Order: sequence, then structure tokens, then C-alpha cells
Amino acid sequence: MNDDMAIIVQKYGGSSVGTLERIKHVAAKVIQTKKQGHDVIVVVSAMQGETDRLITLANNLTHEPDPREYDVLVSTGEQVSMSLLAMALNAKNCPARSYTGPQIGIITDHIHTKARILDVKTDLLKKDLAEGFVIVVAGFQGINPRGDITTLGRGGSDTTAVAIAAALKAEECQIYTDVDGVYTTDPRMIPEAKLLSHISFEEMLEMASLGAKVLQMRSVELASKHNLPVRVLSTFSNNALGTLVTFEDRIEQKRLVSGIAFSREEAIISINSVPNRAGVEGTILGLISEANIEIDMIAQNATDKTTTDFTFTQHRKDYMKSLNIMQKIATELGAAAVTSNAKVAKLSLVGIGMRSETGVASKMFQVLGDIGVNINMITTSEIKISVIIDEAQLEQSVKAVHDAFSLHKLMMDMQPLALEI
Amino acid sequence: MNDDMAIIVQKYGGSSVGTLERIKHVAAKVIQTKKQGHDVIVVVSAMQGETDRLITLANNLTHEPDPREYDVLVSTGEQVSMSLLAMALNAKNCPARSYTGPQIGIITDHIHTKARILDVKTDLLKKDLAEGFVIVVAGFQGINPRGDITTLGRGGSDTTAVAIAAALKAEECQIYTDVDGVYTTDPRMIPEAKLLSHISFEEMLEMASLGAKVLQMRSVELASKHNLPVRVLSTFSNNALGTLVTFEDRIEQKRLVSGIAFSREEAIISINSVPNRAGVEGTILGLISEANIEIDMIAQNATDKTTTDFTFTQHRKDYMKSLNIMQKIATELGAAAVTSNAKVAKLSLVGIGMRSETGVASKMFQVLGDIGVNINMITTSEIKISVIIDEAQLEQSVKAVHDAFSLHKLMMDMQPLALEI
Repeated sequence: MNDDMAIIVQKYGGSSVGTLERIKHVAAKVIQTKKQGHDVIVVVSAMQGETDRLITLANNLTHEPDPREYDVLVSTGEQVSMSLLAMALNAKNCPARSYTGPQIGIITDHIHTKARILDVKTDLLKKDLAEGFVIVVAGFQGINPRGDITTLGRGGSDTTAVAIAAALKAEECQIYTDVDGVYTTDPRMIPEAKLLSHISFEEMLEMASLGAKVLQMRSVELASKHNLPVRVLSTFSNNALGTLVTFEDRIEQKRLVSGIAFSREEAIISINSVPNRAGVEGTILGLISEANIEIDMIAQNATDKTTTDFTFTQHRKDYMKSLNIMQKIATELGAAAVTSNAKVAKLSLVGIGMRSETGVASKMFQVLGDIGVNINMITTSEIKISVIIDEAQLEQSVKAVHDAFSLHKLMMDMQPLALEI
Repeated sequence: MNDDMAIIVQKYGGSSVGTLERIKHVAAKVIQTKKQGHDVIVVVSAMQGETDRLITLANNLTHEPDPREYDVLVSTGEQVSMSLLAMALNAKNCPARSYTGPQIGIITDHIHTKARILDVKTDLLKKDLAEGFVIVVAGFQGINPRGDITTLGRGGSDTTAVAIAAALKAEECQIYTDVDGVYTTDPRMIPEAKLLSHISFEEMLEMASLGAKVLQMRSVELASKHNLPVRVLSTFSNNALGTLVTFEDRIEQKRLVSGIAFSREEAIISINSVPNRAGVEGTILGLISEANIEIDMIAQNATDKTTTDFTFTQHRKDYMKSLNIMQKIATELGAAAVTSNAKVAKLSLVGIGMRSETGVASKMFQVLGDIGVNINMITTSEIKISVIIDEAQLEQSVKAVHDAFSLHKLMMDMQPLALEI
């Protein structure tokens, strides 16, 4: 590896390598990066549809596929796409070699189907880069200390790319996908949504966990830990710089709010005026957990000293199951009532700037009140405010909040925005 | 590995694992063998059609796929089938683990797409057998000393199975396929053809090279070298013992002739009365070889001291090309004529017993003469006599020779047959 050459790690997702034509297109992009004077390592996912095809084979064979063998099976998807990309590169006179995760030495723990990367060996990568090769690596997979093939779970290719970039101290890890980057909110709902040129790791984590499924959360955590800039950009547009995910202090121009995330198909259940004694929350959540229901937000209001209101949200699919459990326990605990709503949505305002500004929450509530939206529940974290509202009012709410915080006017050069209360 | 337990290596071809139902059927056969008290290692090919699908991907991407990457690609076919078989075994409570060629340590040379096995590591195999696992290994693939994935070429899974069986000194290597074993001749042509219970390595090599495509030749050579009995048998019939390929001295009851192999679509070309000087054969064959035409049989008759006849056979597809070359060179060399026939077939009688018996050839020629078949060319080896005849007369010739040597009466317990001249 030439010490003067910066290493760029590029990751291409399943839709980016979904056809032979697209693989040729990716090869052209890789060659372009190489010609700019970079050492390039490419991480690929399986061709779109291939992982599902393999999983269907396993499920049609047996109800509970052996997890070790499941990993052996599905890891072939990335092996196919990596070899095809390396062929496409060699065919264009760009020397390239492909390697599986086990070949590179992407060491993981033993948890099949959702392994975590423990270490990335760099000897082979450094040697091949020094010889001028582009290296193509299968995403999503590794090898455990026993020598078995493991997979990282869906979206794991992002983590493979970040882990390799971190191990080699790459200049940047570029995640190529079928969207242009991270938007202030979903542009399919709000056409005025703006592409963010930068976003902090913390904001990205809040956005990702809320359903802006651009980057796998684990990869953002890993990049943040290793202080590695990650750029999200589109495989299919040539001029875009996408969104750079980086440390807050690297973003020179601050802004108050970065975006609005939302999720539909939520349900909310409250148990009202339950006698407030130690352990009551544990009793309630314990029953929900035993029924294998995942809950999302939790809030509790001690209405007076002897009773309390306990509220939680969850995905709508398990709503009736939870409601039955709650009605039973309400009687046992002597609660006044169980109230619920199965047709709610979550809206979250995310922004690292709100840490030092106290007016963000009140402005958001005021905006929603002005358009007649009733807030069912509120939770807050340091850089996020989430509210539960009627799902029917989601779209108008996102639009109103997006307007109020001038996200539609957010410039790509990120002028700081004043909070206008 | 329990020292008292004999190791059986079983190989299942692409049609044997062609569907999920067939994979379950193979799992049942493996479990049956395991229950008989054997340690079992299973070698699998890719599911029928899968290797072709992968090759088509590569060829549609680029005209000359990089050989290293081609091997990375096509080796995924066996990885899919091995994991599915191991899943099917585990689902039936038979502990099994699958491994790729590289994982086992099937070391090959560097020749991508047609590598040769140099060594088979046995540590992992012995360890897993000792722990009671059935081991499923991907056929057709290995790893070169640089750490790259290699493939052995079509039919290479047979060689993988034999190499593993030899390395572990297995009791027997069983090649499961879609035919019952090796027949005295092709039963699709001659319904009276008999299944051979035994055949010698040498006879098998002659039969295989003549188009009885039951076993890859390289695997027969390897088995012969390591003195390893190989049994060819059907995946789809339960009671058959198939054909055991073994050393001549292990076959107690001798027979004169074991079978008749034949191949259609041959062509024959003779250059007649060519002045017989040193190097003339090299001149003729050199031109054919430069034109990338593969020739099969060669015969030369020195008709008198100054001129000679030179004859060869080849596949029909390149016939016109060869004929043009021969007509040109005949003029240059001052030969009398070029004679040819594009509609001939080859019929070969194979049998280890003919080594010590001289009457076989004359009996064969007499039988063919009796039914009015003209012989165009004859070549012989120690255990084989091949003749070139008109293709239109092939079927009646095979039947007559089959009858004359009483191959239709060959008993499965192999009573010795007398030569009746």
C-alpha cells in the first residue's frame, strides 16, 4: 500500500449489484475512484432477491434450519456477487481479487445468524493493496474462532465495510445505496424534504432506530467508536456527494434540528390510576415480555401520591394480545381503567442542536396544537423529542413541523438556523 | 473416530441432490449407512442445473471471465447443496457439519478451473468423526497454496470423494449416481446388457475414456493408485449393490471380456500412398493440432517400402476442416489420394481377460464379418480392441458382439466364461 494513497472502502447494497448491468456500473464507479488515486476496497451484498431465495430453500427443507448450516447457505449470496464484480473489474483491465469474510479473516463471535465482528485481519488486505489490486470482499459474513462460517444478520454488510475501514484507518467509508443520502424527513411523504450534507453519529443513530433504514445501527455505532467518517450516497446518480455521517465537532456550521423520523402502525395502551407501589411497573412489563411482545416507548405519570398512570407503545400487530393482558392485570392491581388506541403513529424530531436550546419542544407542541393535533404521549432524549399522535394526522403533522423548523429551507451548505419562537 | 468403525465415503451427484425432496432422500440413505455402524463422510455436487446457471452469469457478464473469480463463483454451487444436506441430516437428529473444500484443506495446484488435488488434510475430518458427526464436504473444489479457491473441473466431485477416502484409508468410496452401476454395454441400446458386479480399475479406465461416463477418469486413476475400492451405485434404488471397481486380483472369478463401449459421431480420414520418409507423420499431425482439432485413434500401414497409408479418427464436428487440411497436404507430400468417411462409429471390446487370450480379436472380427460389417480401422491395447465401422451398422454390431461373448448371460456372481472359438 502506498502510504501517500488514502484508502476508500465502498459498500454496495443488494439493489446496486442486483443485475449484471448494475454490476458493470458499479465496476465503472470503482475504477473511477481508483483513478482518482485511492486504494479501494469494495464490500458487496448479495444480488437483490438472492438471500431471500436461499432462505426459502432452507425453510422449505425444514422448519428450523440448523443455524450453523443456515450461515453456510446464505453466505453464498455474497460470494456470487463479489466474484462477478471482480470479474467485471478484471474485464476492464482493473486487477481485482475477491475474498469471502473467512478468507480475509473477519473474526466474529459464535452467535450464528447474528454474529458480531470481534476482529478484522489486515495482512492480506495490505498485501493486495500494495500490489495494486482492488479488493472485493463479501459483506455480511465472517468466521468464528472454531473456523465456522457466520453471518452478521440483515444489513450486516454495512458493518463489514465499517469494520474493514476502521481496521485499515481508511479515509472514508462510502455506503452506496438506492437513495441519495439522509433527508430531513421521508421525501416520499414530504416532497420539500432536503438532503442533509452532514449529520452527526448521534443524530444518525436516532434516525436509524426510528425507521430511516439507510444504515444499519451497529455500523453507525462502530464508525462512531472508531471516529470513522461514513458517507451515504446513491449508486445511481453520479454527481451527488450524499450525506457525510461524522462527529459533531467536525460539522462546522451548527443547526438546531436535523430531521423528522416517523413510524406508522404503532399502538398505545395505558393503565390508569393503578395503585402506586414498588414493583408495579415490573409486574406489568414482565407479563408483556413473557408473551414475547416487544414494546417501544414507556412513560409513567404519578398523578397523585397513591396512584399512577402507566403507558407504553408497541407495534400494532400484537395490540389485541397486549390489551387482553392489560385488562386482566388492571383488575388484579385495582386500576381504574385501561385506555388504548391502535391507530397511532410516532413522530420524532431529531437534532443535536436541541441539546443547548430549550425552546424546541415547546415550539413543536405549539405547532401541533395549532393544527388541531392531540398528543397522546411524549418521550424525550437529549437530542430527540418523540410524540404519539393519531395516525390519520401523521402526514399533516410531519409537514407542519418540517415547515416550522424551516427544514425545507435547509441549505446544502448548512447555514445555521435560528430558532424563531 | 472409533477405530473399530470403518469409514465410508459417499458421493452424491447433481441429479441426486437436484431437489429438496431428493436431498431428504439422500439424508435418509446417509442415516441408514450411519446406523449400520459406519463413520460417514458425504461429498456432494451442486444441485442439478446450478453450475450451469452460475457459468451463464459469468459468460453473460464478460467473454473471458477471470479464472480465479470463475472458481470463486462456481464453487458456491456445492456450498449450497452441502449446507442443505447437513440441514436435512440435523433435522432428522443426525448431527452433521458441512465444510467447503478450502475449510477441510483440500490442497490443489494453482491451475484454476481444472486444478489437481495435491493433498487432503485429515485433522478436522478425524476430529469431527470422533465426535460422532456426519461430515458433508463440497465436491469439486479446493484451495491452492496461496489461499485462493480452486475448482477441479467437471466431474471433479468424484475425485474429491476418492481423495478423501484415500487420505482416511476408508473401507470404500461409494459413488451414487442416476445409473445402477457399470453395464456390459449401454442398456438403452442393448436391453440384454447386464450390470457388472465387479470391474477392474484398468477396465474401468478404458470404459470411462470411451464414453461410459459413470466415473471421472482422474478419480479411477487415483483410486487405483491408492488401492481403494470404489462402488458405483444408484441413489434411486435401494437394494442394488452396484458395481465394485477394484484391483484385478481382488476379483476372484475371472472373465474374458467385461463390456462393450462405443461412441458415435466419429469421422475417419486416410491419406493414401504418401511417400514414406522420416517425419511425415509429424508434419500431418502438426497441421491438425495447429488447427485445434482433437484426434482420437491413429493407425499407419506401410504398404510397401517407399509409401505408407496414414489414418486417424476424430469427432465429426471438425471433419470438413480436417479434410481440407489433408487434401492440401496430400498434394504437397505427393500422396496418391485422400479417402474419408464422416459417418462412422467406434466400437471397443474391453476385458482384462484378453491379456492372456489371443483369440478374442479374431472372434470379434469374425462375428462382424458374419453379419456383413466392414471394418475401416483397428487399434488395440492390452485390454481393449477398437474398430471403426459404419455408424449405420453400430447397433447390430454391438448386439452381435455382445451375444457372441455371452455378455447377456453374464451372471452377477461372475462365473468365468470360456472363449468359444
